[in-house]
Amino acid sequence: MSEKAVARPGGRSARVQQAVHRAVRELEAEGGRGAVTVPAIATRAGVTPSTVYRRWGDLATLLADVALERLRPDGPPADHGGLREDLEAWAEQFVEELGSPTGRLYLRDAVGGAADEGVAGRCSDYAAEQLRAIGVRAAGRGEAVPGVEALMDAVVAPLVYRILFRPDGLSVAYAQGLVRAALTTD
Amino acid sequence: MSEKAVARPGGRSARVQQAVHRAVRELEAEGGRGAVTVPAIATRAGVTPSTVYRRWGDLATLLADVALERLRPDGPPADHGGLREDLEAWAEQFVEELGSPTGRLYLRDAVGGAADEGVAGRCSDYAAEQLRAIGVRAAGRGEAVPGVEALMDAVVAPLVYRILFRPDGLSVAYAQGLVRAALTTD
Repeated sequence: MSEKAVARPGGRSARVQQAVHRAVRELEAEGGRGAVTVPAIATRAGVTPSTVYRRWGDLATLLADVALERLRPDGPPADHGGLREDLEAWAEQFVEELGSPTGRLYLRDAVGGAADEGVAGRCSDYAAEQLRAIGVRAAGRGEAVPGVEALMDAVVAPLVYRILFRPDGLSVAYAQGLVRAALTTD
Repeated sequence: MSEKAVARPGGRSARVQQAVHRAVRELEAEGGRGAVTVPAIATRAGVTPSTVYRRWGDLATLLADVALERLRPDGPPADHGGLREDLEAWAEQFVEELGSPTGRLYLRDAVGGAADEGVAGRCSDYAAEQLRAIGVRAAGRGEAVPGVEALMDAVVAPLVYRILFRPDGLSVAYAQGLVRAALTTD
């Protein structure tokens, strides 16, 4: 998402963004990635193609923007009363949401926006912020908590790597194993 | 790379593949990703655009094919006489080759060929085969060796994740730290 894509909530700019994002999601759901073209998006969203190009630059950057929106957490991670339980539940949800073909596509799109590599970083920050929130809560209960970057390496990185490159064996049990290993060694 | 892109060495098919791959690399080097279009590739390679489409299907699949070719190891991993030394040297080379903007682009392209998700898997297999070769050599010297999938999780996944999503702090020292941690806990 480039600077110019930042929209004030409620303004025309925000309405265009919503309509264009919705058009991308609908076209994708109806016809797959091949159906997602700038002319089709513009027609569906009721704007001109030049509005899309002016705002996002190119299709890859628009897709990265849509992916970022979908990857943004809905709220703080669920509280299950313990560090291990919270991390396991978070990792389970991660696998369920991003291990699907659609989730994989979002991750791909997030690294695909050549015009703005910051989208991938923000997507990674979402995960780091969720892990930090879980850690702060656990520390408040007096639990020993591994650092956020250690958890990124031990839990998030293997999950994302396997979703994108090596899906065989990716499962909730595998994700929980990563969490247990991270808590044993740290 | 789809089945039809598999070429017999020396045949016309192989010559077309070489010319097209070279055209992609040259256009990329000269004008960046924006210069890499099917018409420009075809002109540079001396073939028709329909030859490119017939063989690769679309640009993303061609780019994934080129990326796979560049990510293929040149030979067996260097032998430094010990498991830790071999893994550290391998991880260092991985960071130097793939941590560059060009390397990141290859990794992105490898997951970007929607028409054939197998490219990402083969790219991952290259790394697994190198780690397996290092492990077999170390076992032959009587060293204790972690499993290949454990090394994929502990070393390869964090490196690839950080290259694609979270480059801050990515360095040779970081890669070596991952290797040491993998050998301590396994």
